[in-house]
Amino acid sequence: MAGSAIKPTPLLKDELDIVIPTIRNLDFLEMWRPFFEQYHLIIVQDGDPSKTIKVPDGFDYELYNRNDINRILGPKASCISFKDSACRCFGYMVSKKKYIYTIDDDCFVAKNPSGEQINALEQHIKNLLSPSTPYFFNTLYDPYREGADFVRGYPFSLREGAATAVSHGLWLNIPDYDAPTQLVKPLERNKRYVDAVLTVPKGTLFPMCGMNLAFNRELIGPAMYFGLMGDGQPIGRYDDMWAGWCMKVICDHMGWGVKTGLPYIWHSKASNPFVNLKKEYRGIYWQEDLIPFFQAAVLPKECVTVQQCYIELAKQVKEKLGKVDPYFIKLADAMVTWIEAWDGLNSSEEKSSKQPNGTAK
Amino acid sequence: MAGSAIKPTPLLKDELDIVIPTIRNLDFLEMWRPFFEQYHLIIVQDGDPSKTIKVPDGFDYELYNRNDINRILGPKASCISFKDSACRCFGYMVSKKKYIYTIDDDCFVAKNPSGEQINALEQHIKNLLSPSTPYFFNTLYDPYREGADFVRGYPFSLREGAATAVSHGLWLNIPDYDAPTQLVKPLERNKRYVDAVLTVPKGTLFPMCGMNLAFNRELIGPAMYFGLMGDGQPIGRYDDMWAGWCMKVICDHMGWGVKTGLPYIWHSKASNPFVNLKKEYRGIYWQEDLIPFFQAAVLPKECVTVQQCYIELAKQVKEKLGKVDPYFIKLADAMVTWIEAWDGLNSSEEKSSKQPNGTAK
Repeated sequence: MAGSAIKPTPLLKDELDIVIPTIRNLDFLEMWRPFFEQYHLIIVQDGDPSKTIKVPDGFDYELYNRNDINRILGPKASCISFKDSACRCFGYMVSKKKYIYTIDDDCFVAKNPSGEQINALEQHIKNLLSPSTPYFFNTLYDPYREGADFVRGYPFSLREGAATAVSHGLWLNIPDYDAPTQLVKPLERNKRYVDAVLTVPKGTLFPMCGMNLAFNRELIGPAMYFGLMGDGQPIGRYDDMWAGWCMKVICDHMGWGVKTGLPYIWHSKASNPFVNLKKEYRGIYWQEDLIPFFQAAVLPKECVTVQQCYIELAKQVKEKLGKVDPYFIKLADAMVTWIEAWDGLNSSEEKSSKQPNGTAK
Repeated sequence: MAGSAIKPTPLLKDELDIVIPTIRNLDFLEMWRPFFEQYHLIIVQDGDPSKTIKVPDGFDYELYNRNDINRILGPKASCISFKDSACRCFGYMVSKKKYIYTIDDDCFVAKNPSGEQINALEQHIKNLLSPSTPYFFNTLYDPYREGADFVRGYPFSLREGAATAVSHGLWLNIPDYDAPTQLVKPLERNKRYVDAVLTVPKGTLFPMCGMNLAFNRELIGPAMYFGLMGDGQPIGRYDDMWAGWCMKVICDHMGWGVKTGLPYIWHSKASNPFVNLKKEYRGIYWQEDLIPFFQAAVLPKECVTVQQCYIELAKQVKEKLGKVDPYFIKLADAMVTWIEAWDGLNSSEEKSSKQPNGTAK
């Protein structure tokens, strides 16, 4: 294997799980071998549990199918989506590690403009281990990066930054467009490599894509619920968006940072826009109410853990979005179930969910 | 002249003035000749008015020295700084054009990673003529740029964007650091070309640098006051910062966008950090109060013109920052004088300062 010669030093090897939702054999891992081989994988098998998913030799993994999810969570398994990549959040729940990286199985290793393979995981880890700057925008982007700093006019009291909870990576080739945009621009490819990492400012929402995403599970894990999507639900493809909006409101409340930008992965395959349109159309309509809801959401200062924040947010979802569609009442209940299930599996560990991260090893 | 062979089509030729504050001969314009020659320049001569500033042949310009400023503004000339590049804002006031580009005389043409000279002015104009996205962050940056769009999860109702008031460009080579950072990192150079333009989100402040800056004067001109700096004042090098914070609060109130990122210029010369420290040290201290002040500033909805917003902000500066230092009482008065002087020179035109921009020619 030529790849194994370039094995990088694996940062946080014993503190990070890679979560992959899939319905197929994981041949895509071959390309990631030099970067992932030394990490532990949590594979969440979606769809028919009797199907066998092949994982290339040499990877250390655990795999959960629907039967496993039902067995482990019992009635609470209802909060985990089926036939939708939202099922990936089950992997976050069963992990015992401090950090999670999650990637889709149609994502490959991208190259930077110099033609070098990008170690996406390493960049995510750097993003997570260095602070964020949610309170004031730095015009030279990440001030902690080599060759950069805070510019003139940046208050010194803010230069310590905030702990980083989430690192949102981007995609070259197939951009993450909604169905209408896919239909209108079927040939558009993202070719622009923007060499920047930046903090999404406090109070600003963004569309979080779950394709190439890392987070500090100890900090924000309980807010990373990907909702009720797919089988039996009126909506799909809003799992990561939902998680992103909930997570951002909670990070803003807790004083944690969210970064976006580098690293890029190579997104190989556009999903079918007609199928996507069917999954999305209610979401496209509903999001016009969701965004103002999340923009206005305020969490009381009594909420000092992520779980408390999330339960409070579920209450507000039920109250305010329940009027938009009964689906949100069901979703709000599932949000509560999710927290119960999370706490059931993470009883002692999650007591410490308030502690700050950001101290490099 | 080899350069004149590559003269680009000058966008907005008759609608944009280039404002340059200077104390020396403008040899730096030679390098900008292909890009600036067809535009009108407004040169604001700082320092000794008896000195003659040489402007290379072939440029169309008007030049104002301190005597001119005193003659034109009379007693109101007190609001225009002396011996500080803050004097540039006089140029904004006497311009009759819709757009302003301002650049420092130690800024040269930068090259993009392909080695091509960057037409900074053209990029600024593109930034100003296309909308901004202050209400929701787009992870692929400027959605109006060729090859990009709004990503999945971006509300459709927000995709028209907002009118763009300001385009803040960046600098390769010498970064815009404060004196302490200059002292600590004397050799740091900005080598990273980040190929992105993005909107600074609503509610987020940033450090606006006046070195390479364009704006829609008809929209936001009256808020582009660079304050009382330099000769006779306790502070320097906060002129652009002050303007940026005031401007951003007003743009947020008025619903206009502010962009930062491309274009880069090549910043050739680091100013003396010891001299800078003397100019800045009070600002470094005061900005710890200024930022919370501007972050909390709310303008009443009765303020429907930039002038009204600015006068209201001056009132709040006097009330709240006057306690920090008596300098801010003087500054608040100068802010009012600035608006009076602006309205005196722009009487009829500025009645229309509320009208939206953004319509490409």
